[in-house]
Amino acid sequence: MNGADSLCDTLLANDVDVCFANPGTSEMHFVAALDRKPRMRCVLGLFEGVVTGAADGYARMADKPAATLLHLGPGLGNGLANLHNAKRARTPMVNIVGDHATYHVQYDAPLTSDVEGVARPMSHWVKRTLTAGALSADAAEAVGVARQAPGNVATLILPADTAWTELPENTPPVLAPRTAPAQTSAQAVRAAAAAIRSGENVTLMLGGAALRERALNAAGRIARATGVRLMSETSNRRVERGGSRTPVERLPYVIDLAVSKLKDVRHLVLVGARAPVGFFAYPGKPSLLAPADCNQVVLASAEQDLAHALEWLADELGIAADAPRLAPPAAAYEVPQSGRLTGAAVNILIAHTLPEQAIVCDESITQGREFPIYSASSAPHDWLVLTGGAIGIGLPLATGAAVACPDRKVVTLQADGSGMYTLQALWTQARENLDCLTVILANRSYATLHGEMKKVGVEEPGRNARRMLDLQEPHLDWTHLARGMGVEAVSVDTVEGFARALQEGLKRRGPFLIEAVI
Amino acid sequence: MNGADSLCDTLLANDVDVCFANPGTSEMHFVAALDRKPRMRCVLGLFEGVVTGAADGYARMADKPAATLLHLGPGLGNGLANLHNAKRARTPMVNIVGDHATYHVQYDAPLTSDVEGVARPMSHWVKRTLTAGALSADAAEAVGVARQAPGNVATLILPADTAWTELPENTPPVLAPRTAPAQTSAQAVRAAAAAIRSGENVTLMLGGAALRERALNAAGRIARATGVRLMSETSNRRVERGGSRTPVERLPYVIDLAVSKLKDVRHLVLVGARAPVGFFAYPGKPSLLAPADCNQVVLASAEQDLAHALEWLADELGIAADAPRLAPPAAAYEVPQSGRLTGAAVNILIAHTLPEQAIVCDESITQGREFPIYSASSAPHDWLVLTGGAIGIGLPLATGAAVACPDRKVVTLQADGSGMYTLQALWTQARENLDCLTVILANRSYATLHGEMKKVGVEEPGRNARRMLDLQEPHLDWTHLARGMGVEAVSVDTVEGFARALQEGLKRRGPFLIEAVI
Repeated sequence: MNGADSLCDTLLANDVDVCFANPGTSEMHFVAALDRKPRMRCVLGLFEGVVTGAADGYARMADKPAATLLHLGPGLGNGLANLHNAKRARTPMVNIVGDHATYHVQYDAPLTSDVEGVARPMSHWVKRTLTAGALSADAAEAVGVARQAPGNVATLILPADTAWTELPENTPPVLAPRTAPAQTSAQAVRAAAAAIRSGENVTLMLGGAALRERALNAAGRIARATGVRLMSETSNRRVERGGSRTPVERLPYVIDLAVSKLKDVRHLVLVGARAPVGFFAYPGKPSLLAPADCNQVVLASAEQDLAHALEWLADELGIAADAPRLAPPAAAYEVPQSGRLTGAAVNILIAHTLPEQAIVCDESITQGREFPIYSASSAPHDWLVLTGGAIGIGLPLATGAAVACPDRKVVTLQADGSGMYTLQALWTQARENLDCLTVILANRSYATLHGEMKKVGVEEPGRNARRMLDLQEPHLDWTHLARGMGVEAVSVDTVEGFARALQEGLKRRGPFLIEAVI
Repeated sequence: MNGADSLCDTLLANDVDVCFANPGTSEMHFVAALDRKPRMRCVLGLFEGVVTGAADGYARMADKPAATLLHLGPGLGNGLANLHNAKRARTPMVNIVGDHATYHVQYDAPLTSDVEGVARPMSHWVKRTLTAGALSADAAEAVGVARQAPGNVATLILPADTAWTELPENTPPVLAPRTAPAQTSAQAVRAAAAAIRSGENVTLMLGGAALRERALNAAGRIARATGVRLMSETSNRRVERGGSRTPVERLPYVIDLAVSKLKDVRHLVLVGARAPVGFFAYPGKPSLLAPADCNQVVLASAEQDLAHALEWLADELGIAADAPRLAPPAAAYEVPQSGRLTGAAVNILIAHTLPEQAIVCDESITQGREFPIYSASSAPHDWLVLTGGAIGIGLPLATGAAVACPDRKVVTLQADGSGMYTLQALWTQARENLDCLTVILANRSYATLHGEMKKVGVEEPGRNARRMLDLQEPHLDWTHLARGMGVEAVSVDTVEGFARALQEGLKRRGPFLIEAVI
């Protein structure tokens, strides 16, 4: 056995058994080792942004890290945008990045670059293994770091010679420690309880694991008993919602709406969330969105056990474990029947027909902002969104989620502009026959930027601006793009057509794409 | 006027008048400024790897930098692989990377990242502008650095508030200095001449600007008069070749071939080239490819005036300015007429029919390794190849080259695996109606990796390895992919079919794609 074998063995011993990969020459010994370990499921992405985005989607749903396999600095660079999203989502992930042999780096061959430098901005932890013998321990450390609550992006740099160097047969794998998240303090719980008892306007701002079912149950009891408002951060790793689950309002992305939503808050209780800040700065608008004089209380930080903290808070408030929870809203829309297709119609029809236990991957940007409102009354589902603002995660995220949950339907709401960044994910969906229904919201522009142009005072964009904001001339044809990668697809521009295509897409198993021209 | 206006003015005053762009919200004031400057040609890429690769292709052909416009750390991250190639090519480039407003960074909004950290590994120069008033000077410095021979990647980080802050009307642009490259020394010229006069085996290893016509004329005179061998590095920014130009042999990529080519060299004269090193390390194979005991002489480094150095060397050797040059080879192939299409047939047919002044963008990887041999006798053309080993540059490179040279045919030899990394470039070719003929060499595998697997001793790859090296199940359909982005395309798998498609593609103007299934 060689170093690469021992690395694989340690990953498998720690239950990391899926590897999203885009390998190159320097990783060939690792690929050969993977070939000797059929228990490891290797999933090829034709571009590294697919690999890292899929590893994110996988871990959000599997609640454990996948490995990625990337090729030197440039391969890691290609995966960086979705690593940024994963870092912001606090998704557990173990990146294995091949590099030149230790002794070869000094010669500055063409593919040489500062791999640590590329890794560091988008990783919580970076380490370069220097000998084959150290690989097991380093890999176990990477897994341990990745799994530490709420999750971390760990990047291990693998020089080619550490992979190919022989080790004694039966070199044992190393097990990573499993550490439970810390618990919040009585003081924090009492402070939150005092805020709620004040009788003033209170918002519980939930983030991270506070949006999973057990934590939401506790939050829902508190909200029902006390009247506090439940709100989530704008960008969340995974929200368990729909059915009888506790509904949570999402803080709007648009800054004026967000400020308006928060303007009356007197006590902001943060539960795995951070004090809300503007996604971008704008001249004359605030960076911090909550009123400057509101009382901010941290019930628990993202690193702590959030379900436990909310249950403790409910206890502190004297709310019984079987007290009723905040009720989900009734469907508050009319189902459109016919006519020209609109973004709203797409959102409503998906929300209306969403199957039980669907996983919704949502990179709908402007056209899907109403989706969470319509889908609050949908069947129980998981809702995964863009966390770090680096567009191009929707299709990869769906790919990874489908690998994690082969028995659940994955429905992706994908804006056309951002979908183009990582469209190669469709090929992986076809290759792995993943049960992914993709809906492309084809408005054929960077609509969000059109809005932003107005905000900077440009009412009538000229040629240069239009050519940077419009996706016309030529327009993208997503049915061709999908078929080019082996995914069946239809294009529709009417409500009837979309309803039919949606029904068809939900019925079949395997990848299918609907281009919804709106 | 605001900071963004002054930045545009300075770029234009320094003759940077093309901006390859993929903007986002934080760059909206810059986009609005570009909208007020119709002299700036803005070219949208639907993915940042397209943007940076196109800026590389543009500068290689225009001999001046383009600007790029990128969106924060993740947008820059997406462009990093082709920045790596540009850095290795020493291509002049000015990246404008938007970032949050200076005062907003502290709040760590979701898109916040260490932009300098992302930029540094793939840039020669990185600077963050801190005030609107400093933008002109900083932009001029960026252009000056980028233009400094042999060329540099300069990255300027543009906080949103420096762009939007008002400046006095008529704030003047700042002109960047133009500095001529340094000249080599008499000592270096004498050392090179002594090596050549030794009568022993001498190779002139040419790189960078030594592969442009004027330098090649001098090298061709030296080779003809003295019998020294002319060789180029494996990866070159731009080679002017074909017609009556001096032929130069390319150092092979495959390590055993490269070592064998160099084994008898007694004197290695480096002209803008570095001592050859293996692209990758392999167990038991050397990192340095030339014989350890050969005499290495640096005639001139990449930063120096290489044409002048070679002319000086010819003078020193007493070779007249009008002495005859090394003659180009006669066509040494038979033109295939029919049958199943092969990589060799594609290479020969393209070499045979290449129009005068074509620009060949070559990311053909395994299937095009013979192309430079066949095309040595083609019509005069420029040949641009992958310089840094970060695959996914072919289509963007062609896009930029076509923007720089609208009157020349751009022919791209593109391997299918690497083409998938940045296929979005086809849309820009359609949008700008660029005269780009793309030939996809569709072998439906990462063939280079199959070769590498054999080298690590895996003769019969198993399921995991095959699924990471093969692009089958499903196979990619490039005609659909191209049509999805507005580019007409045909697929052929016979010699006759390819010959016909090639003729058709060369005849028309505008983008066209041939999927050559081999």
